[in-house]
Amino acid sequence: MAMKDVQPGTRNEEGIAAVLGILKQTFGERFQTGQSFREQHTHTTTYLPAQLPDGVVFVESADDVKTVVKTCAAHKVPMIPFGTGSSLEGHLNAPSGGISIDFSRMNRVIEVNAEDLDCTVEPGVTRGELNTYLRDTGLFFPIDPGANASIGGMAATRASGTNAVRYGTMKDNVLSLTVVTADGEEIRTAQRAKKSSAGYDLTRLYVGSEGTLGIITSVTLKLQGIPAKIGGGVCAFPNLKAACDAVIMTIQMGIPVARIELLDEMQMKACNAYSKLSYAEKPTLFLEFHGTEETVALQSEQFSEIAAECGADEYRYTANAEERAQLWKARHNAYWAGRALAPELNGLSTDVCVPISRLADCVAETQADIRETGLLAPIVGHAGDGNFHVLMLFDDKKPEDLARAEAFMARLNGRALAMGGTCTGEHGVGQGKMSYLEQELHSALPVMRAIKKSLDPDNIFNPGKIFRL
Amino acid sequence: MAMKDVQPGTRNEEGIAAVLGILKQTFGERFQTGQSFREQHTHTTTYLPAQLPDGVVFVESADDVKTVVKTCAAHKVPMIPFGTGSSLEGHLNAPSGGISIDFSRMNRVIEVNAEDLDCTVEPGVTRGELNTYLRDTGLFFPIDPGANASIGGMAATRASGTNAVRYGTMKDNVLSLTVVTADGEEIRTAQRAKKSSAGYDLTRLYVGSEGTLGIITSVTLKLQGIPAKIGGGVCAFPNLKAACDAVIMTIQMGIPVARIELLDEMQMKACNAYSKLSYAEKPTLFLEFHGTEETVALQSEQFSEIAAECGADEYRYTANAEERAQLWKARHNAYWAGRALAPELNGLSTDVCVPISRLADCVAETQADIRETGLLAPIVGHAGDGNFHVLMLFDDKKPEDLARAEAFMARLNGRALAMGGTCTGEHGVGQGKMSYLEQELHSALPVMRAIKKSLDPDNIFNPGKIFRL
Repeated sequence: MAMKDVQPGTRNEEGIAAVLGILKQTFGERFQTGQSFREQHTHTTTYLPAQLPDGVVFVESADDVKTVVKTCAAHKVPMIPFGTGSSLEGHLNAPSGGISIDFSRMNRVIEVNAEDLDCTVEPGVTRGELNTYLRDTGLFFPIDPGANASIGGMAATRASGTNAVRYGTMKDNVLSLTVVTADGEEIRTAQRAKKSSAGYDLTRLYVGSEGTLGIITSVTLKLQGIPAKIGGGVCAFPNLKAACDAVIMTIQMGIPVARIELLDEMQMKACNAYSKLSYAEKPTLFLEFHGTEETVALQSEQFSEIAAECGADEYRYTANAEERAQLWKARHNAYWAGRALAPELNGLSTDVCVPISRLADCVAETQADIRETGLLAPIVGHAGDGNFHVLMLFDDKKPEDLARAEAFMARLNGRALAMGGTCTGEHGVGQGKMSYLEQELHSALPVMRAIKKSLDPDNIFNPGKIFRL
Repeated sequence: MAMKDVQPGTRNEEGIAAVLGILKQTFGERFQTGQSFREQHTHTTTYLPAQLPDGVVFVESADDVKTVVKTCAAHKVPMIPFGTGSSLEGHLNAPSGGISIDFSRMNRVIEVNAEDLDCTVEPGVTRGELNTYLRDTGLFFPIDPGANASIGGMAATRASGTNAVRYGTMKDNVLSLTVVTADGEEIRTAQRAKKSSAGYDLTRLYVGSEGTLGIITSVTLKLQGIPAKIGGGVCAFPNLKAACDAVIMTIQMGIPVARIELLDEMQMKACNAYSKLSYAEKPTLFLEFHGTEETVALQSEQFSEIAAECGADEYRYTANAEERAQLWKARHNAYWAGRALAPELNGLSTDVCVPISRLADCVAETQADIRETGLLAPIVGHAGDGNFHVLMLFDDKKPEDLARAEAFMARLNGRALAMGGTCTGEHGVGQGKMSYLEQELHSALPVMRAIKKSLDPDNIFNPGKIFRL
């Protein structure tokens, strides 16, 4: 939480005034400074207070981006790239003011190379739009962070989600980027070849840099063949340890599960209430298998043996698409089911990630902490990766609630770090996790700062995020 | 080839003299300046002329590395990390003199976390040593670049090899590093969690940085379960196009081949002669399948259907370990078979990597070029990744041979780049590919240089590699 990290920065009023004038002249109606535009371009999905940009520019090409960067760089004015606004840690706030760069009009699929299983898109394409576009090719882009985020935003925050256990995260699925650097020029980080040892891995340096090192103008992605068959399963366990043991054995045996999601008791209760279901209110795994008719059946069979060995209560499986949608309904609605536990409260979704051997301990200790703190906070985990989310429900208008939630979050992060884990598996650092990153990678922060200073000497790319300079 | 990139750099004689004295005093017998030690620590596996370091220090701990770095940094003297000496592009040369840091005594496996499928090792452990150590755990480290390289060297060059098609490259298999930076302090790049969005991805910045940004002191690696069953196959095709089409279809269908290697006609001829075999001297794929009894059989069956569709001549498959070793003998001995085509000549192995849709074209044009140039140069490819090696056999003492090989290599790289490929899929840049990297990622080099300058302002980490400053 660390509200101290959301303090306003210093505003360069003179530079901002100059840039507002120039951008208005250059972009006309495509540059907006009205209150509602500015509000729409800060954060709506978090507890963090909004810090509005001074204007919003709707770019339509890499040349537009270059123009914006050159203008802002000349006057040392901050820029904040904006995809769909679904990030969770205050990435879109403008603590020192500046210009929000809206990518919704840069949403073209530039090329698809079906034989090479890759495509190149503009950053404003959402994953939903991309998969709709790809449907006829038999290919899909697997990364699914839940929200229908933009590909540029997903690259910038190193997003992942439910099927990262099989397909990896954005770091594994971006082949190459074009990026506009602080001098307003566009660079390409890599060729389209599937692997390369050609120099520093700039692709992965920009992936996850949260807009602080440059502005992404195109993304080349790996694609996957749409599975011939998808199987789905649900399995309740007598306790958390048994469920996590089943996950560990599944991963160790190399069963290529596409998704293996853990919902805790409170989350299952919420799902039953919200979706009118009658699942056991026990720690439950939701599974998805991708492959052919034969291989998904085989995978499910192997999992069912593991589940039985771990003392699972009941394993339900189907390879029928409709039945699978029904089985998975609880998981798909988990967020809204959680919110519905207390519709009057705010919901703050936070995430940590630990080595999977520590997942059971970390979740159990967190549940105990939730009970002791008196919080309402269901847990959903991407268990195969050791990544889990706590949806904290609280009234952010009440200082005592906020303080309690903040203290809980500090303990959660401390616990994950002590277990060899990370303060964020997939949400990124933004403003919300700066102090935890400081704890996690204290020794490495000078290197990150040196890189930031070398590539953005005037601190104009999304300032006030990831770390203090 | 670009011999101009192997010119000596400026030597800081005063600093070197000071460092030699201090290291002798500090490390005693663990610091050597004799000619034979210095020769052993430059490059023996390439055509590039050796450029000897001034001394060799045998480090035994991260503290030793810190001492060496602080000493060299104080006197602005270059350091070149040394694993096993198997790199191919002049990475170990010391164009400006300096100190070779030998990691052969830092070869401990620090910890194995079997449940998490990870381990942490010192950089001097070879992949062979690691896999021997792991045998009883049921786990293995999959990356196999051919040579029994050190894990530190493999991380530094972003190595991969035959089974990258299934398990990825070092970029995908290093979870975290510790690195000694220019100020002589040790940093940790990440925690042990399987994924993270916590700040800049320094792990992948150091992986592939070829010792130019800091000195790796430990590597945390992902491990895999040893497959219950391994199947092997060999399949000859009437022509290159048919073989490459089979590869593309195999990848597109998502058959999780562990290895899919392409040997061209000349290579098959060399293998027959060297290993006394009687394979058809046609473009041939060597395959390996990892899984269970059932899944390897299924994978092989799926591949055989594809092969038939592509007009394959004959597909031989076995799930018996001995028979598989026999089937694969030709591939395993391919390098020595190639060298045996002309034992009196030097062998230079170079690699490029293209999108797989262009693999057939790139190999066919390269074969035509080889014929026209009158070179002896068999081709072996990691076909599933679009990566292939040309083993150029020539007399590097004859200027005309060298010039001819150099011109051929320039065309090979130009061809790969024009097809969206890279000048090096897995060997790295070192000295040998600097001019090709310049062609490939021209726009991005200023960013790489800025990072280098920010993390190594005195250019003491493996200077004269990857790019000119």
